[in-house]
Amino acid sequence: MKEVKVALIGTGFMGKTHGLAYRLLSTFCPADVKVRLRVLADVTEDLARAGARQFGFEDWTVGWESIFDYDIDAVDIVTPNLVHPDIAIEAARRGKHVMCEKPLAVNVAETRAMVDAVEKAGIVNMVCFNYRQTPAVAMAKKLIEEGQIGTIHHFRAVYLQDWCADPNSPWVWRFSAKHAGSGALGDIASHAIDYGRYLVGEFDEVVALTKTFVGERPIPHSRETGVVDVDDAVNMLIRFESGAVGSLEGSRFCYGRKNCLAFEINGSKGSLLFDWEHSNDLHFYSAQDPEDRQGYRDIKVGPMHPHAERFWPIPGIGMAYAETSILQACEFITAIAEGRDAVPNFRDGLQVAEIMEAVLRSAEAGSWVKVPRVA
Amino acid sequence: MKEVKVALIGTGFMGKTHGLAYRLLSTFCPADVKVRLRVLADVTEDLARAGARQFGFEDWTVGWESIFDYDIDAVDIVTPNLVHPDIAIEAARRGKHVMCEKPLAVNVAETRAMVDAVEKAGIVNMVCFNYRQTPAVAMAKKLIEEGQIGTIHHFRAVYLQDWCADPNSPWVWRFSAKHAGSGALGDIASHAIDYGRYLVGEFDEVVALTKTFVGERPIPHSRETGVVDVDDAVNMLIRFESGAVGSLEGSRFCYGRKNCLAFEINGSKGSLLFDWEHSNDLHFYSAQDPEDRQGYRDIKVGPMHPHAERFWPIPGIGMAYAETSILQACEFITAIAEGRDAVPNFRDGLQVAEIMEAVLRSAEAGSWVKVPRVA
Amino acid sequence: MKEVKVALIGTGFMGKTHGLAYRLLSTFCPADVKVRLRVLADVTEDLARAGARQFGFEDWTVGWESIFDYDIDAVDIVTPNLVHPDIAIEAARRGKHVMCEKPLAVNVAETRAMVDAVEKAGIVNMVCFNYRQTPAVAMAKKLIEEGQIGTIHHFRAVYLQDWCADPNSPWVWRFSAKHAGSGALGDIASHAIDYGRYLVGEFDEVVALTKTFVGERPIPHSRETGVVDVDDAVNMLIRFESGAVGSLEGSRFCYGRKNCLAFEINGSKGSLLFDWEHSNDLHFYSAQDPEDRQGYRDIKVGPMHPHAERFWPIPGIGMAYAETSILQACEFITAIAEGRDAVPNFRDGLQVAEIMEAVLRSAEAGSWVKVPRVA
Amino acid sequence: MKEVKVALIGTGFMGKTHGLAYRLLSTFCPADVKVRLRVLADVTEDLARAGARQFGFEDWTVGWESIFDYDIDAVDIVTPNLVHPDIAIEAARRGKHVMCEKPLAVNVAETRAMVDAVEKAGIVNMVCFNYRQTPAVAMAKKLIEEGQIGTIHHFRAVYLQDWCADPNSPWVWRFSAKHAGSGALGDIASHAIDYGRYLVGEFDEVVALTKTFVGERPIPHSRETGVVDVDDAVNMLIRFESGAVGSLEGSRFCYGRKNCLAFEINGSKGSLLFDWEHSNDLHFYSAQDPEDRQGYRDIKVGPMHPHAERFWPIPGIGMAYAETSILQACEFITAIAEGRDAVPNFRDGLQVAEIMEAVLRSAEAGSWVKVPRVA
Repeated sequence: MKEVKVALIGTGFMGKTHGLAYRLLSTFCPADVKVRLRVLADVTEDLARAGARQFGFEDWTVGWESIFDYDIDAVDIVTPNLVHPDIAIEAARRGKHVMCEKPLAVNVAETRAMVDAVEKAGIVNMVCFNYRQTPAVAMAKKLIEEGQIGTIHHFRAVYLQDWCADPNSPWVWRFSAKHAGSGALGDIASHAIDYGRYLVGEFDEVVALTKTFVGERPIPHSRETGVVDVDDAVNMLIRFESGAVGSLEGSRFCYGRKNCLAFEINGSKGSLLFDWEHSNDLHFYSAQDPEDRQGYRDIKVGPMHPHAERFWPIPGIGMAYAETSILQACEFITAIAEGRDAVPNFRDGLQVAEIMEAVLRSAEAGSWVKVPRVA
Repeated sequence: MKEVKVALIGTGFMGKTHGLAYRLLSTFCPADVKVRLRVLADVTEDLARAGARQFGFEDWTVGWESIFDYDIDAVDIVTPNLVHPDIAIEAARRGKHVMCEKPLAVNVAETRAMVDAVEKAGIVNMVCFNYRQTPAVAMAKKLIEEGQIGTIHHFRAVYLQDWCADPNSPWVWRFSAKHAGSGALGDIASHAIDYGRYLVGEFDEVVALTKTFVGERPIPHSRETGVVDVDDAVNMLIRFESGAVGSLEGSRFCYGRKNCLAFEINGSKGSLLFDWEHSNDLHFYSAQDPEDRQGYRDIKVGPMHPHAERFWPIPGIGMAYAETSILQACEFITAIAEGRDAVPNFRDGLQVAEIMEAVLRSAEAGSWVKVPRVA
Repeated sequence: MKEVKVALIGTGFMGKTHGLAYRLLSTFCPADVKVRLRVLADVTEDLARAGARQFGFEDWTVGWESIFDYDIDAVDIVTPNLVHPDIAIEAARRGKHVMCEKPLAVNVAETRAMVDAVEKAGIVNMVCFNYRQTPAVAMAKKLIEEGQIGTIHHFRAVYLQDWCADPNSPWVWRFSAKHAGSGALGDIASHAIDYGRYLVGEFDEVVALTKTFVGERPIPHSRETGVVDVDDAVNMLIRFESGAVGSLEGSRFCYGRKNCLAFEINGSKGSLLFDWEHSNDLHFYSAQDPEDRQGYRDIKVGPMHPHAERFWPIPGIGMAYAETSILQACEFITAIAEGRDAVPNFRDGLQVAEIMEAVLRSAEAGSWVKVPRVA
Repeated sequence: MKEVKVALIGTGFMGKTHGLAYRLLSTFCPADVKVRLRVLADVTEDLARAGARQFGFEDWTVGWESIFDYDIDAVDIVTPNLVHPDIAIEAARRGKHVMCEKPLAVNVAETRAMVDAVEKAGIVNMVCFNYRQTPAVAMAKKLIEEGQIGTIHHFRAVYLQDWCADPNSPWVWRFSAKHAGSGALGDIASHAIDYGRYLVGEFDEVVALTKTFVGERPIPHSRETGVVDVDDAVNMLIRFESGAVGSLEGSRFCYGRKNCLAFEINGSKGSLLFDWEHSNDLHFYSAQDPEDRQGYRDIKVGPMHPHAERFWPIPGIGMAYAETSILQACEFITAIAEGRDAVPNFRDGLQVAEIMEAVLRSAEAGSWVKVPRVA
């Protein structure tokens, strides 16, 4: 059995989710491969040591550069966005496979450099749009591909949270353009953009507004305040290449919405509706049902649906965030084992970056902006 | 007791709803006034005679002009949009109070002429944004006015139906720019625009797209097809004068959405959520609840809520479309009885017309358009 | 056109709903009949006079006996339960058609006397299980009759309210065994029992518990308290004659449940789910859909569904309590016009009374009790 | 750091869930203990070997008796019910801590023998009512203990699934009284019974019905059919010692209900509502909110709620079945590490067994049966 030795860089929320995933691949991933959690890096000794113990890594180290002192096959990057490119490019240079959190970088130029590096190196590369892995969403994709929805007319998506609505919630790197690239746009709306590309197709043009409601926030353990120079919220209208139209919004100022990543798709034969807050339900409306018994079907995801068959034998038992991470790690490791491309890859990440940059330019220009297509 | 003699022009869906409302005012409207259903007009003798019988009118007549042969105090206009201005202006000229379905006219210019006429005549005038009358929406307004939501950040509204999604559904006047002015925009999105003005405030600027999915439709009992030269769907982004941002969509191509007029408002202290399809529920989130027990409250509307106290003694018994019509007729008749302005009036209808015209211009120009403020 | 002259006895909540219904029959009821609201009676002059004005009756009178001084065809009884039998029997004796609120009487014996009287007189008789008129429930019935649910295994019903949960809410006649017969059982659970009979079939036996949580309540404008000698809540298990099993509960002590009259039916081919609090949605699950796209369908009631075609042309526009009253009055008046039995009639009311008496006996005896079948 | 060496017996669905839990304790369980997955046993070499590889055990063995050849501290039993007692009693005799799936045994007598054995041995013992571990349910418990619900009046619980509704679904040991003890009662309703005891208190008496809809089922890879001699469905009414009343149902014949483990509790100050199919939502109604803004609050579970703080930093991200298993394993291992009792323990399992036996006796006797209290 092939062995893949993984280095993980970062121990935050995403480190926790990636860390658990690898340990469960033998249970939930059919790939004929053994994963070794070789080394974990973070910026301090305390973080790195604790992370290694908690996530089951054999070794730990301080600073991402030193992971290359270890015999590793793959690098998993869960640092702040700013640092992604240096790590990814160095990993590529050294021929290591790379999985990287979204957004890949703080702008298109750096993202493109990452794509160039991994493609030149010929390594497996993957961007962590983990919500795409949700079984309910995979089932939505299946229904679309089967033609059950017909020609898609509308895409309507939001990613709404409320953890920034309190102006006293503290400054973190996510509020800094330098560190994050954008605010709600890259942090959360990017997942909804990925849904749009995955389910509807490429974006042709966008018009957008961005808004910053709170310009400064307290810095923890300090009398200083930090500047917020990114969007607290973003709204866009979309024209897809297919002729479909859409709207998409990201905001972290929506009291009551905790992790509302939701979409609705309306087509010439039916509709689909999904909300992550009830992530085991896919709603499907078929206009082919007899007229007096049409209605959105609340499909409870279970073993008869794509991806979900690996988990539990009874529908409605439920999967959640952890399972998206397991499926994502499985895709990455399987791609390595089979010597094939991972999905979604850095090129997908670049196309999302192009959309986000078009959104920001539109918000500034006040008019529609064409989205460049990645060659 | 004062008596108000009403003439109704039109016997379609709206005629039916207006007709029932007047008959129930003695039960549900506290105004000290007696309404007489004096005369009903429609374009054919059959329609007018049947309408008079069904809706309880004393007389019927063919053609709207002849209603003025009767001794009447008020005119209620439920014809296709194209005909609204002539009737309303003639009624005003003759000093009759006027209630008119939305949108008031097919464009701003004609709407302004209507406003000028009724204001010059000093008569009571009212535009039928009936959904504003919903008790749950009145309660939303109350919570906003009390400050429970704080500063409003977001407005998110849709009005989605699906009766046009089948390309073989027949051509009606609503698909004609000449007769209707616009498509989904005036027909349904205008109600969501009214919600925005009512609950959030005036629109500063908009950017929009419109889309026509089906360009021709069969004409019933004919081999001809009718041209669709209005929007099947409209999407807009909004900047409100208050600084709030919003999105708003109207479409009749959304399979599964039958009469989904819904909004969400997020503010600095809480949120509100409403969907007409469950019109007796107002969802209210208060960030002032203790952190571990915050959640959208599903308030079941009942006698403790504004407007609803006139109906049933138990919450959850339920009100629906008919009740909005009763409340609307009550407001019109009460304004007449008390010699005061009705709310919303033609000036509100004009401001909505200005927004709609800005939306259409933006969709054509591809950029933000400032919304003129009615003086 | 035939004319039916109606006398209404009582002006409370039910008087209000019945009163509005008659006035709208010309709009919503296809029967070829003209209804005249001839006379309204209540126990005081003030109540009767105000009622007549509000509900549009030509005359008013004090005391139910005096309605027979007027030329009437039909009597509509909306008094406290205790008084129902005397009125109904006298009306029958005089050959007047009778509609009566549920429960028909305070026990089986008096109910049987009412049935005997109306059947001997050969008049149209109807019991006001108005919730059976709901279009969504009529559609449920249609799906069952078509065989879409298969053999019914389970019936699960509740009628939950919360207006008694506060021990300081005042004493009313509904808390008195003498006046009401029973508490939650007759007041609300009886509607759920009617659903069981209507949709599943006859009850074979029941086992039940009753509970009184608050034994005394303040009498308004008095220092006295009133005794509560009826059930605040009732729970029962049911064996149907068909072999189906069920549970049914009524309580007015369920904070958060305002008018939750809900049922679920599970059969060998599918399921049905309905909750009055969202009365325009019927949920239908078909096990005949392909396995990976089965789910409860949320059918929005509209013109393609039974009863609803009389109201609005668009599904989701919504009907509510008033519409059940209109449909009920239409059935009564149509039965009179056509000289046929009304559904449900007093015999249905008697069978429900037999079930309720079996429930009370079971609660006392602590064992299963067979339900007598009305011959 | 203390080390606990675990033996797992069984590799089915529950083996999968328990197996994943141990591997993640270093991430999600604060206990200062290291778990070693020492040995896994199943009935065939193939099952045992595959299980050990998939779930990360060091060794595997055939037959449960041979686990005692290994140096182990704790035994985790996930076999069919029939085998539980022998294993648990032998483990106790050897001083090994024991975690055992529910129901502990096929009847009260054997369950009592298990309790006697573990208590005599003084070992940590735990019964796997994993659904009690759900953070939303822990929050419900907290609100009850704080007095937010007041005196509890009503408990209403169901556990509904649909995997038996098809009469052709194959015979498994769960349909055999000898192997399972009971059907829906022990398999699923026992979880709802555990909720009742956990949230409301001890059961005083019950009355129940049981029903078997399909008496024989095909045996896979055979022309024989297997007899179903257990309940397909069970319905009960409950009198709690506290005076509260309740109803509880378990059925695997409810098309559309996949894993609907739900309860509602109504008290003198408020209500609680939970449905596992949306397991990250706790609905809480407070009658202490102002009257016109009371409503069931949809609390999205997150880091401010008990147990959930160990998982993700954002509410609404979601936990599901796997997380209940992690919390359960954490409780077991922590109890071992701290030398304290685990909750819920075998004594809790015995009390549930007493309730289930009372239910079965009531179903046979047709009358109320008192529930014996475990001393």
